[in-house]
Formats: sequence, C-alpha cells, structure tokens
Amino acid sequence: VTGAAGAEPARRILAAITDKRAGHRLSSDTIAEVVGDFAAGRTPDYQMAALLATIACAGLDLAETAALTDAYVRSGQTLRPTRPVVDKHSTGGVGDKVTLVVAPMVAACGMPVLKLSGRGLGFAGGTIDKLESISGLRLDLCASEVLQMVDRVGMVIAGQSAGLVPGDGRTYALRDVTATVDSIPLIAASVMSKKIACGSRGVVLDVKHGEGALVPDPGQARALARLMLALGTRFGLPGVAVLSDMSQPLGRAVGNALEVKEALAVLRGEEVPGLTGLCDLIAALMLRLGDARLDAATATRQVRAARTSGAGYDVFARWVAAQGGAVEQIRNPDLLPGAAHHDLVRAPAAGWVTAISARRVGEAAALAGAGRLRLGDPVDHGAGVLLHRQAGDRVAAGQPLAELHCTEGSRAAALASLTAAFQVGPEPPATVPGHEVLAAEVAVDHLA
Amino acid sequence: VTGAAGAEPARRILAAITDKRAGHRLSSDTIAEVVGDFAAGRTPDYQMAALLATIACAGLDLAETAALTDAYVRSGQTLRPTRPVVDKHSTGGVGDKVTLVVAPMVAACGMPVLKLSGRGLGFAGGTIDKLESISGLRLDLCASEVLQMVDRVGMVIAGQSAGLVPGDGRTYALRDVTATVDSIPLIAASVMSKKIACGSRGVVLDVKHGEGALVPDPGQARALARLMLALGTRFGLPGVAVLSDMSQPLGRAVGNALEVKEALAVLRGEEVPGLTGLCDLIAALMLRLGDARLDAATATRQVRAARTSGAGYDVFARWVAAQGGAVEQIRNPDLLPGAAHHDLVRAPAAGWVTAISARRVGEAAALAGAGRLRLGDPVDHGAGVLLHRQAGDRVAAGQPLAELHCTEGSRAAALASLTAAFQVGPEPPATVPGHEVLAAEVAVDHLA
Repeated sequence: VTGAAGAEPARRILAAITDKRAGHRLSSDTIAEVVGDFAAGRTPDYQMAALLATIACAGLDLAETAALTDAYVRSGQTLRPTRPVVDKHSTGGVGDKVTLVVAPMVAACGMPVLKLSGRGLGFAGGTIDKLESISGLRLDLCASEVLQMVDRVGMVIAGQSAGLVPGDGRTYALRDVTATVDSIPLIAASVMSKKIACGSRGVVLDVKHGEGALVPDPGQARALARLMLALGTRFGLPGVAVLSDMSQPLGRAVGNALEVKEALAVLRGEEVPGLTGLCDLIAALMLRLGDARLDAATATRQVRAARTSGAGYDVFARWVAAQGGAVEQIRNPDLLPGAAHHDLVRAPAAGWVTAISARRVGEAAALAGAGRLRLGDPVDHGAGVLLHRQAGDRVAAGQPLAELHCTEGSRAAALASLTAAFQVGPEPPATVPGHEVLAAEVAVDHLA
Repeated sequence: VTGAAGAEPARRILAAITDKRAGHRLSSDTIAEVVGDFAAGRTPDYQMAALLATIACAGLDLAETAALTDAYVRSGQTLRPTRPVVDKHSTGGVGDKVTLVVAPMVAACGMPVLKLSGRGLGFAGGTIDKLESISGLRLDLCASEVLQMVDRVGMVIAGQSAGLVPGDGRTYALRDVTATVDSIPLIAASVMSKKIACGSRGVVLDVKHGEGALVPDPGQARALARLMLALGTRFGLPGVAVLSDMSQPLGRAVGNALEVKEALAVLRGEEVPGLTGLCDLIAALMLRLGDARLDAATATRQVRAARTSGAGYDVFARWVAAQGGAVEQIRNPDLLPGAAHHDLVRAPAAGWVTAISARRVGEAAALAGAGRLRLGDPVDHGAGVLLHRQAGDRVAAGQPLAELHCTEGSRAAALASLTAAFQVGPEPPATVPGHEVLAAEVAVDHLA
C-alpha cells in the first residue's frame, strides 16, 4: 500500500506503537526514523505522546534504549572540547546544589568541568534557575562560547544549548506534559544523549531515590544507574554512579539564592551534614574519571583542599565574572536576592525529628515562589526554605524547625506544606535518612 | 497546590495517566472529568493520546469501562424514540452488508429499526460509504429527522449524528491516529455509548473474530462481546451477541455498490452461503429483543418470510425514497455505480480453495478505490471485488476465482493482493472457515 506523501511517518509510528504494545522489540532503524520524523516536525505530538506512553508501560530493552540515545545524539550537533573535560549529572532532588559546589572544586584541582544544566519543574529545583539568582550571569551560551569558557576558566555551566540533541529536547518537553517522565529507559536515553553530545571524558551520575526523587524506589534507581552506565559504555563515555537518598532535602537550603548561598558556604569550608560529604565524593570521582592515575585517597585529599582552602571559591568567582555575573554577590552573598517575609515553623512538642519530607519541603519552596508549575513561568529567586533541624535532631517544644522565605508567593499554603513536612516523635528515629552513598557502580576499571 | 486557571484539567489527566500505568483503578469522577475536559476542548490531543495509549496497555475494569461509557453518553444529547426500536452493531468486517439486509427485514416484520452507522477505514468498509452508492440518499440526518424516519418508514440508517456522544466522537478520531483502536474496553465503551444514546429497546452485537476482524483472537472477541453485554445490562439496554468468523469475506461482494447489489439480491430471496444465514439469525434476534413474546422458531419464520416475499425489499425502497435516494437504482440495481475494468483472477492449478484471506480481499478492494486510508478521502463507489468461489469449493486450473472492479484505483497492486488472497491446494480444507455462529451470549432471560 503506497500512501500519499507524509503518510510514511504516520505508518511508521503507528506500527511502532502497535508492535511495542504487543511486546515486540523496535528495530534501531525504526527508532531512528521515528525520532528523526518527530525532530523534523513530520509527526504530530499526539502520535509521539501515544508512543511515549506505550514505552512507559511496555519498556525498552538495552538495544532499543541505545538506539534511542543514538537517535537523540544524531539529531543535533556535538561538542568537541580541545582539552579533556569531565561532567556530572543528578537525576534531581530537593536542595540539590551539588553542581554549584563540585564544578569549581574539580576545576580548582586542574580538571576542567563542562556541564549543561536544566531548569526546575514541580517540587525539584533546577541549576539554571539557581544560578539566575546572580545578576547578569549569562547562561544561554552557544556551543563555541561553552568551549571558550572551558579554555579560559576551566569550568562552564550553561543552559542546554538548542543545537544539542534537539530530538531529546522536543521529546522531553512532550514527556513533561504527558506524565511519561518517570520511565527508566526514557530517562536514561534523555540523560545519556546529552552527556554523550558534550564530548566529556567521563561522567559521574548522582542517581537519587526516596520520596523526593524522580524514581523513588531504590531498586528502580539502581536499575536506572546501571542502564545509564551501560549506555555510557556503549557510546565510549566512562561513568560512575552514586546512589543517594532523597527522602529528606539535601543540605539546609531549598530555593534559588538560598542554595547559591549554601553552596558558597560549603566552598568556604563550612561542613553541612549530608551535603559536604556527597560533594567530596562526587568531586573525587570526577577527578579520577579525568585522570586515570589518581587513587581514591589522593583525589579525596585534593578536592577537600580545593573546598577548604578557598581555591574552589575563587574559581567560582572567576567563572561568574567570565560569564558576566555580578562577582560582588559572590564575594558578599548577602547581596543575592532575599525575601520580604521570614516565617518560622516550630516544633509542636519536645522530641526528635524523625523525618523531613523532601517532597513537602520542595512543594513549600515552590509555593513560596521558588519553583514553577509550568516551564516558562517566572520564579522568585529570593523565596525558599531554610531547615534549622535535620532528621535525627532532638528538639524542645516551640524550637524553630525551619524558616519560610516568601514575598509574593502562596505564603499560607507554603507554610502548611512546610509544617506538614516535619515528623516529630517521642523517640529518635531508628535510622536517620541521610545522604549516605549506597553504591558506587564502578564501570571504569581503574576506579574499581 | 492551586494552579493557574486551566491547570486543573492537565493535573487531572496527568494523574490519571500515572495512576493507570501504576495499575490503579480510575474513579468514575476522574473518568467523567477527563472525558468532559477533552470533549470541551480543555485538554490537548497529546495528553488524551497518552492516556488512551496507557489504557490500551494497562486496561480498564468493568466499573471503569462503565464510567467511560457513561461519560461518553453524557457528553451529548440522547434520542428518545416514541415507538420501541431495535438496533444492531457489527465490529466490522470485509463484505459485511448485514445492516442493509436486516434493517428492512426487521422493519417489514413490524419492528422499527434505528441504526446509526459509520464510514469505513483501512480494509473494512463502512455502511455509510456503501449507502452513498445510491444517488441522492441523505444520510446526515439531525436527531429529529432520525426520529421522524422511524415514525414514517419504520426504519432509519444514518450517519453518526454530531450531537450524540461527541466525547466518543473526538476520542475515536484520536484513537484512529494513535494505534489505540484495538483496545477491548475502549471499543466496548465507544460502541455501547452510541447504542445507549440511541434509546433503543435492544441491540444485537455481531462480534467478528478471525484475520479480517478488528479483534482477530476468538477469545478476545468473546471477552469484548461479554463486556459489551455487561455494559448494556448496567445501562438498561438488553443485548444479544453473535460471534462470527471473519477469516474470509462475508458473502461474495466487497465494495460499496457491489455490496448494495448483493444486499438487494438477498432481499429478493437469493441465498448467499454464509451471508443469508447470518442475516436471518441477526434479524430474528432483533425481532425477539423487540417483542418478548416471540419464540425463536416464530421469529425466524417471520424474518425469512420478510426476506423471501419481497416485503423487506419494499421497505428498503420506501426508506431510500423517504431519505431522498434514487429509488430507481433500488428497483434496477444495474443503475448503481460500476467500474470501467473487470479483471479476473484465475485458479493457478486444479484443486480446492482452502482459504480466502478477508484482509487481503479487503485490501484489494481498498486499493481498487473502494476504501480509504484516511478519513475524509473520497471512495470509488463502483470499485471492489466479486468472489466467484468460496473456501471449500473445488476448482479447475484457470477457472475464475474472483473479479476485480476498478476504474481509477491502483489496479495492479489490487490484483496482486486479490491473487494472494486465495489459497488453492490439492486437498479440500479440513474445516471450511464459514460464517457459522460460534455462540449466542444470551443476556436477556426470555431469549435463553
């Protein structure tokens, strides 16, 4: 049956939907054609939405996921840094400012970092939103500017470039509005295509689990980590995965400028329980991915020195200046945006903080104005939450648990969500849900 | 979290997609809201496509399917015929002109028939396309015209009215272009909502299985039949289901005017193997649904008399005239559209016809111009296929098996498909795939 012009893309994607639902494998050619059709605007959104929903139900195997990753990478340009660079990725969490800490730490150790980041949506924040707290900082760099920053400063953080993996870009935007973001193979192909297109020497994957994570189940998070590492191996991108707990927020600050301030405090040597250790671990793994001769102890010593000596802080300031940002806000973080109202949430009774819901804290921050419900909505860079207590802490009745920073947001709803985030009980929790590293899946021989 | 205006429909359907994929039941309220949002244009196609694809994978239980049916019915107006009427529905097949035969047969027995029909797509024909072979026949009646025809003629066949079940109408159009037509609960809700909205006293469901059917697997077809009957029971619409084989075409004619001619021949008393028996069975069941006092033998005698006496033929002619059609084409079917070329397909060797692929015959007819690949495309009413032999027939080498009627269509491709439809072997087939009734699922006590 030979159809009219334009009928072939429809025939291909409809056959792919039917085949996938029936449990068949999709061929690499089929996947490449379907992604190519969609990236080129030959396939309507509703057909791609139906295919994504079918994949979210029926899954993709490793070969199919690799074909999808390859199709995304081939849909756009790729970066070819002249110096070796390393990269990191987090699957996202509440209070996750690790990129802001580790990129300058690793760069200060002499290993350039090239990191393209996204914006936040829902209860999880995005690195680009956080960095936009800094006046004047340019984050929409073109590919050549990204590579220039690597050469000039040794680090670059920028928004996802439009020229890279446009096939993933269009697909991600559609997944976001069709409840198909939490599919393991779709996440893995989306993340790894972006990492592969950046041309780095290695990537550290921070895969979150727990209530505040995109993939709450630890087993599923581990499967996602293994799948991403396997894709990296197939495409010549060495990787290491850290599985970390996201059942309570990471660090004390949640919100854009608040998180930049906390990152700067860590880069001045401050120890934040849960956060500092994770930053050291990820930074050391990044360093070792970039330099095969480094052992774990040496790498850890080097990144700690970069954090406590102020060397990382200096790199961060130089980088902000180089991308046009207000370096005085880095030297004096009190100049970063703030909020009109600071409301305290207090312990209802004496006891122990047994749990802090990352999701509710993230929702409180978003309601206060720090987050957005739809891409394109503005965010309030000064809004957010500061936690005074962490899980396992003992509290007296009436003692402050957390502080809501809010100007124009839904203050009452945000306070209600923040209050509901805390569980205070008469006994200390049996296990403190921390940001302990559960596993480091070492895919690179010299890191084993 | 209270979102901006318009955010609620998105939140609802995204939650429904996530819940359904996770294996949860959707509440009746959720289903009603989601269908209402979509019917009112508050939900974009891509979100509904993702939900339909998820349902096609994960299924719906009876309560969910009933809620979907109810939501479709409530999305538009419903008919309230003043006289009791009966209805029938076929899940669609190649050469299925049963409606054209049974509606006048039953009406001639004094039981009015109200039947809203659809157009064909792909290899299966649609009743409305077939009837448009008749010059001038108006099939786009409004609700009051439909009811007037019942009163005036005792039968009406018309296109699906825009005012009835618009929620299903929009959803069906989207299913058609997202490869989600073959989901059992989606089919059941779509069919039964239309039947319920027509206000009839009972419906005979002709559920096809076999290679040429929408649902090829007999077990799945039986499940579909049971589900539709269960929905009918819930909504006070008594029903009977006939499971019939669609592995070879129904009757000898496939194509629009060719099928009208065959229907008229049956209404003149001609016996067509496979077709006439099925028409008598369905007509008798329709009659008994309308009149609880009739036993099977009496009903069968009455409908046969209507078919062989010419009474049904007269009702058909009166009905065509009443809806503005050229009654001279009914009196003299040679005046119906024909085709410029008649090509014979001949037996390659002596032997027995062991099988005739309904799907390939349907494709041949569609390629000849009788069908369409996309809704809105025109059809050639004169094009199609006439079968000279049926499965189980003995043939000599070179004897005609079938005849392709084609004017402007893809004649060579159609002939190739028609040739490939026939299997001729040295032995007679062990079982002749006929249109035998496999089961009559009697849901109404007095028909048991």
